Amino acid sequence: MAKDKEFVREIADIKEDFPRWYTDVVLKTELVDYGPVKGTMVIRPYGYAIWENIQQGLDKRFKATGHKNAYFPMLIPYSFLTKEAEHVEGFAPEVAVVTHAGGEELAEKLVIRPTSETIFCEMYSKWVNSYRDLPMLLNQWANVLRWEKTTRPFLRTSEFLWQEGHTLHATSEEAEEETLKMLHVYEEFVRNELAMPVLIGKKSEKEKFAGGVATYSMEAMMLDGKSLQAGTTHFFGQNFTKPFNIRFLDKDGTHKYPYQTSWGVSTRLIGALIMAHGDERGLCLPPRVAPVQIVIIPIAQKKAGVLEKCFELRDKLLAAGIRAEVDDTDNSPGWKFNQWEMKGVPCRYELGPRDIENGVVTVSRRDGGEDKFTVSLEEAIGGAKALLDKIHDYMYDKAYKFMHEHIRKVENMDELRDAVNTGNFALAHWCGDTACEDAIKNDMQATSRNMPFDQTGAEDGKCVCCGKKSKHLIYFGKAY
Amino acid sequence: MAKDKEFVREIADIKEDFPRWYTDVVLKTELVDYGPVKGTMVIRPYGYAIWENIQQGLDKRFKATGHKNAYFPMLIPYSFLTKEAEHVEGFAPEVAVVTHAGGEELAEKLVIRPTSETIFCEMYSKWVNSYRDLPMLLNQWANVLRWEKTTRPFLRTSEFLWQEGHTLHATSEEAEEETLKMLHVYEEFVRNELAMPVLIGKKSEKEKFAGGVATYSMEAMMLDGKSLQAGTTHFFGQNFTKPFNIRFLDKDGTHKYPYQTSWGVSTRLIGALIMAHGDERGLCLPPRVAPVQIVIIPIAQKKAGVLEKCFELRDKLLAAGIRAEVDDTDNSPGWKFNQWEMKGVPCRYELGPRDIENGVVTVSRRDGGEDKFTVSLEEAIGGAKALLDKIHDYMYDKAYKFMHEHIRKVENMDELRDAVNTGNFALAHWCGDTACEDAIKNDMQATSRNMPFDQTGAEDGKCVCCGKKSKHLIYFGKAY
Repeated sequence: MAKDKEFVREIADIKEDFPRWYTDVVLKTELVDYGPVKGTMVIRPYGYAIWENIQQGLDKRFKATGHKNAYFPMLIPYSFLTKEAEHVEGFAPEVAVVTHAGGEELAEKLVIRPTSETIFCEMYSKWVNSYRDLPMLLNQWANVLRWEKTTRPFLRTSEFLWQEGHTLHATSEEAEEETLKMLHVYEEFVRNELAMPVLIGKKSEKEKFAGGVATYSMEAMMLDGKSLQAGTTHFFGQNFTKPFNIRFLDKDGTHKYPYQTSWGVSTRLIGALIMAHGDERGLCLPPRVAPVQIVIIPIAQKKAGVLEKCFELRDKLLAAGIRAEVDDTDNSPGWKFNQWEMKGVPCRYELGPRDIENGVVTVSRRDGGEDKFTVSLEEAIGGAKALLDKIHDYMYDKAYKFMHEHIRKVENMDELRDAVNTGNFALAHWCGDTACEDAIKNDMQATSRNMPFDQTGAEDGKCVCCGKKSKHLIYFGKAY
Repeated sequence: MAKDKEFVREIADIKEDFPRWYTDVVLKTELVDYGPVKGTMVIRPYGYAIWENIQQGLDKRFKATGHKNAYFPMLIPYSFLTKEAEHVEGFAPEVAVVTHAGGEELAEKLVIRPTSETIFCEMYSKWVNSYRDLPMLLNQWANVLRWEKTTRPFLRTSEFLWQEGHTLHATSEEAEEETLKMLHVYEEFVRNELAMPVLIGKKSEKEKFAGGVATYSMEAMMLDGKSLQAGTTHFFGQNFTKPFNIRFLDKDGTHKYPYQTSWGVSTRLIGALIMAHGDERGLCLPPRVAPVQIVIIPIAQKKAGVLEKCFELRDKLLAAGIRAEVDDTDNSPGWKFNQWEMKGVPCRYELGPRDIENGVVTVSRRDGGEDKFTVSLEEAIGGAKALLDKIHDYMYDKAYKFMHEHIRKVENMDELRDAVNTGNFALAHWCGDTACEDAIKNDMQATSRNMPFDQTGAEDGKCVCCGKKSKHLIYFGKAY
């Protein structure tokens, strides 16, 4: 009998070297590869399938809240960027510039969109005339490009995929409401589809979007206690509608500038779910976006009838709406167990001659919520959805517990430093001064994450940094 | 009573000025708008919704034939283009070049992908090692950019959206089979989803893809008798796998270069369906990709109960999987009829107090296949799908008849000239010489479209141009 190929995991120890573990995992499980141009990534089929599931889940929610998709050009005249002073300051250093096209030098330099506020505004200025044209609720799924010095697959790459919603409203209140509504849509999505708890709140002035009035974010805790900003929504007031001269004739017969929002999440979410749920064996994918939800491993697959039964089971699972796959390669069952565990498939069904004889399936959960167990063939099919839901809940609860165990209330710089240096978020009183954020960043490389909506007791204390009267409760943490 | 706003169609006469009719229709129905950078387009929600339906229909078919989606970077090192001599010759004149990024001049110029053969090959050279890695069956949905001198929305724009499949196979036969398989997938898709008949066949050497061995196309006839190349599939042999050094260890223990294909369709398909089905009133959308399949127009909508009944009907249609919408704006019914006819919605339901009293709905088909008629409310819901199928069939049959009435068998240059100058395709004998294609193009601005697979009698005749012995039957026509 041929000797079994030995499975070599080749991923760094998650406890010893988390950054290396991350890179090993994303490459080894074939989620992604490095592109030939520095800072770019190739999203491989296993990674892209996660993105497709994320897209579907979000797109459904955007449409249910009245948004429509459109597609705007990726090339933007450089002059557009300069129409809003903070915006150009924020993005000009990161843009890629097209100077030649069609064999000729261009009269005006073009940038590849780093974000699309300006080009949406340009078109909105043509399309919006009356209050009847409002609200304008558009979204696009697109690639964007920001030239970054330090890059890591999914987390920060020069080109990435995202969606960007851009909306216009007749009143400030309506626009602010939209900004918060979409933040809650994001929060609900990552909770119910990615099994990820997040902290939502308002960004500080220092950390807000270039050109915005206010930015809200959801911050997810990674397994090393660092924060990953997983999505943002922005309120722009009239900062862009004025320079782009977008005006509408209101019901009262006067011309007004509408109020604007934008909001986006990106392929970064894939990085987030990897670092929120993984373990020493590799990926642990949340069932609702996992490309393969149940993998079926034949035992003694050369025995008559085994593979047939496996494919029959797969077909029944597919018919029940479960993404199931049979691994009928010639690797050993043990090798396959390791391989699919590393790839984070939520659930494994083993099916061998004895199982078939007894009409059962042996089930293993990837999340660790239960030991290996046996169910009837009927239950393996009819109960699959409930089982995946159970895995989802377990993963969410685990991540929720982890996050809340790693949030510390701190009163002074020593406590703050100790918290963020040992893998925690710190909830602190803050005077509202950017100088204190700067001092904290210089001292311990931590940044303000966001201010929770519940600000009860915010003023009953002193700023963690300068000791002056507190105005806000705010989270600090190290961040990706 | 307020005077009704008069509906002004503002689109050119389709018989008198077809190009102008096209531009008027795409702008006026808000499918698309011109982008700020010359040659770019903004795909507006009504146009993008058609593209989403096209994407879904195709993506399902790609997955059913074993393909997986991935995403490759849009920036390609200029040097990649030059690895295949014909490829760089074909694409270099059209590329947009990024010379600066992140505030610095780049060491190597980058191009925005005009197509992605080279970057797929670069990655495949890392990923493919053994016959077990083949076939490699990937597809991506992406934007591409080709700097064009003359542009028209959907038909030819600098940036456009498409899908590009890139596959590798162990043998030439397998790759050739894939090339033809995907051509048939495209043909079946446009027939069954866009109600468009096409002519499929092989392109001449002159018209094939830059760097390929063979190109196959589907050619659709537009209402002016011109051809629109609606999709292509390419067989590359080893033209790219050799310079990119993609090699695999075959079962026989030797290293070999795999054989390659690529295939793509784009947002051009939207232009195709507009020009295949439209009429003097505007768009006529094929039901299976129409963003709104049935529009419900309330009659006397201020009368109690009318709008409620309309929305009730809509909800039942939505529940039956029909994309239905109620127009409850304050325009007059007549204005709405005109508006939705121009927008090409396949079917209109009118519902007023008398209809409600009688439990009926008045139905109008956009395609002209039947006069206005009345059905019971139950039939309006339960029979909706069958009605849309009937509209689809009628549109396909009409387009099929039109195409075949506008194909002429020609024997000489006079007949050929007369055929293509009066809005026909010409089926001709051809010696196979590029010089004859050049002569025909110079004489009458017609190009060879493709050579049908049925070549019965191809050699029983003389070349339409030079009179030498014929080798092929081939279609000529004016083209977009």
